[in-house]
This record gives sequence, structure tokens and C-alpha cells, in this order.
Amino acid sequence: MARVVVDVMPKPEILDPQGKAVQGALPRLGFSGVVDVRQGKRFELEVEGEATEEVLAEVHQMAELLLSNPVIEDYAVRVVS
Amino acid sequence: MARVVVDVMPKPEILDPQGKAVQGALPRLGFSGVVDVRQGKRFELEVEGEATEEVLAEVHQMAELLLSNPVIEDYAVRVVS
Repeated sequence: MARVVVDVMPKPEILDPQGKAVQGALPRLGFSGVVDVRQGKRFELEVEGEATEEVLAEVHQMAELLLSNPVIEDYAVRVVS
Repeated sequence: MARVVVDVMPKPEILDPQGKAVQGALPRLGFSGVVDVRQGKRFELEVEGEATEEVLAEVHQMAELLLSNPVIEDYAVRVVS
């Protein structure tokens, strides 16, 4: 069993209203020093067997097709222990 | 300038309908071998200066107070380059 993480973030040129809302709330809560916030999604996939190249290629396809919207989001795939 | 990532995931004992929806969609799209999916949030914070212990302690407070719901979610803070 292997655990694969897919991080999905809005592309840098895309507005991120959720991130902006968090950024706006921080000073009201007394926090300073945060100059930018981006909010995205994190998927943890538990896959059967080892995280082989084939498995990771399939996860890339899942990320492209289902987990992200490639028009407005970037994704990254990585294996965690 | 330092970049700090806060990962927020549903606690293991909490139902995760979003993750289950993804898991249910995968076989319909022709993907097999994924036995569990959990969906959470990922925040990227850009903070002024260095990621000192004080800064990270503040980010932990932000995660506790604003970025996560500690009743149903766990969070992890880490510095990325």
C-alpha cells in the first residue's frame, strides 16, 4: 500500500477569492506579516501495491481529469511514506 | 520572504464525503487500484522575513483559529523553499 498526495493550487495568474478572504481575515484576528495567501486542495490517495512509475502515471491522469481543472489550476503529485 | 504551507485534512475518524465522491468517480473513469481518497485543503502563506520559530508559532495559531476546524480536522505546518 502506498500513499500518494496530489496538491492542487490555483494558477498564479488566477484570482483566488478564498485565499484573499483568509488574507483579509488575518489582520482582523491580530496576525500581521502575511503578504499573500493562496488556497488549494490536497488529495491523499491510498493505492494498492507499490508506487511504481505506472501507478504515478495513472495518478497524473486522475489529477488531470478529475482532481484538478487544468485551465485554472496546477497540480503536483508526490509519494509520501 | 518565506513560504509556509498549512495542510488541513479531515481527521481519520471523520467521514469525508468529498473524498468518497472522488473515490466513487475513479472506477467510472476507468481507474482502478485506489482504495481510499481523503480530500483536504492546502494553504500557501507568503510571510515577511524569515520563517523563524516565532513566525511558525504564529502560523500554528492561524491554523488553529482560522484555517482549520480542530474538532474535525488536523493540520500540519511546514516551510517550503
